[in-house]
Amino acid sequence: MMVAMDGTLSFVKGHGTGNDFVVLPDPDGSLALTPGLVAALCDRRFGVGGDGVLRVVRTAAHPEVAHLAGEAEWFMDYWNSDGSLAAMCGNGTRVYARYLVEAGLADGPTVAVLTRAGVVVAEVGDDVAVAMPVPVVGGPAKADVGGVTFDGVAATCGNPNLVCPVPDLASLDLAAVADLDPAAFPESANVEFVTNEAPVDGADLHVAMRVIERGSGETLSCGSGACAVAAVALTGALGTQPREAGVVAIDVPGGRVTVTLTPDRCVLTGPAVLVASGEINLSRLRLS
Amino acid sequence: MMVAMDGTLSFVKGHGTGNDFVVLPDPDGSLALTPGLVAALCDRRFGVGGDGVLRVVRTAAHPEVAHLAGEAEWFMDYWNSDGSLAAMCGNGTRVYARYLVEAGLADGPTVAVLTRAGVVVAEVGDDVAVAMPVPVVGGPAKADVGGVTFDGVAATCGNPNLVCPVPDLASLDLAAVADLDPAAFPESANVEFVTNEAPVDGADLHVAMRVIERGSGETLSCGSGACAVAAVALTGALGTQPREAGVVAIDVPGGRVTVTLTPDRCVLTGPAVLVASGEINLSRLRLS
Repeated sequence: MMVAMDGTLSFVKGHGTGNDFVVLPDPDGSLALTPGLVAALCDRRFGVGGDGVLRVVRTAAHPEVAHLAGEAEWFMDYWNSDGSLAAMCGNGTRVYARYLVEAGLADGPTVAVLTRAGVVVAEVGDDVAVAMPVPVVGGPAKADVGGVTFDGVAATCGNPNLVCPVPDLASLDLAAVADLDPAAFPESANVEFVTNEAPVDGADLHVAMRVIERGSGETLSCGSGACAVAAVALTGALGTQPREAGVVAIDVPGGRVTVTLTPDRCVLTGPAVLVASGEINLSRLRLS
Repeated sequence: MMVAMDGTLSFVKGHGTGNDFVVLPDPDGSLALTPGLVAALCDRRFGVGGDGVLRVVRTAAHPEVAHLAGEAEWFMDYWNSDGSLAAMCGNGTRVYARYLVEAGLADGPTVAVLTRAGVVVAEVGDDVAVAMPVPVVGGPAKADVGGVTFDGVAATCGNPNLVCPVPDLASLDLAAVADLDPAAFPESANVEFVTNEAPVDGADLHVAMRVIERGSGETLSCGSGACAVAAVALTGALGTQPREAGVVAIDVPGGRVTVTLTPDRCVLTGPAVLVASGEINLSRLRLS
């Protein structure tokens, strides 16, 4: 029971390259999480603030997934900041795995996490690595952002992406919504803008990206977007020699991640940091 | 010593009508607060998040103000989120006074707080009331916001404001910067937009406002702006009978405050809420 007698709720605040989360330890699944409570917790001024909530609950203790308790001890009950449920999030899973090990709930370094998209295996070290869906590179497509047309390459990584090589990232104005061809992207897509960067040790390619996420606008980081960018970059879309596999270092606005890609495996590696912990006074949140 | 041996720093997160702060208990003044640390703490994704930091330090323990220890036991060492020092903030002082009483550092309900603008006396109850500078209403002036010109009345309340009566608040597009006549506002000004609302019990006037703060854009609340609005509204600028004194209920986007104004006294009253408390892992902040 993580709601104490005095009405406080334990929490941890963490982020992966600036994609930030309110982690709620609730091993026994006793917390009645609702869309309204999630939104109040994620409110950056009236609550704790975050892009989403990661509830840490034993798989066996959550009715939605109890039948999968044999696959992974811990279930990542992931909610977006608007109170909707989400299946999977590369950065969220990295933060979640970091929490499990740091709290002593899992031994590490290898940690299996059940998500609504299946079991994700994480490796927890200085950075945290998670296996992501292998991106599938598609054909050319265009995006219009604030009246400027960008040519790109479609790539799915669990969700749809459009990867657009550009000569310069800093000068882009990404305040507008990205308009996409609904025939090519019936569920819209994240749009990544990417440039080549100078080589770095340990990577076959080094690029920098900015991203407009579906429904969120420009964000500091996007795990699946980084994987899509790596896959498109390895095809030679940025003018480098095409490669079947490789390691791609990707600078996102919130830091650096690395994507290791082979034809049948995609691993996203990067920092996952638990910054603060404490108690929330539930009765003082602003529920709307 | 509020930095524990393990490198954690105690904090409280609180807000006054959505104007939010990281409160740092540091009674003995042992914390080496720097602009970089303040900015890292206030970062909403890599840190705790807030509009500013309120360091709670004994007046006698802070070299800047130790000679004023006879005036108030506690000094509000207030920093803006960009790491600059600030003199005074109505909402910040209300949150600070709430903290002193809730933490048992002051008895209440009357609490004297030393700020860089002098001693502010707060009354801590269900709401928290603070005495603000008495607004001085000036002459007519104009603001241009995104190509639309607004007529208003200048009013200072510690800082300069321009109060603009408008027929409807909801339809305003306040995403742009407010352009002001530099001759009238050499240090720029907060610009408030205000409409009359239906009467409410306990108030002589009831208005709603939105505000573009100097250097911050539109915010959820502005204490000095609310006081300026109250003073201008009482002159009859919104079409009501002029009054020398009165109680003005003001709906801001972050809630409701009340301003009680007489020719020689201005009191700002409203909620001040401590939402969460805990420890920050200092070594994990992102110092730039």
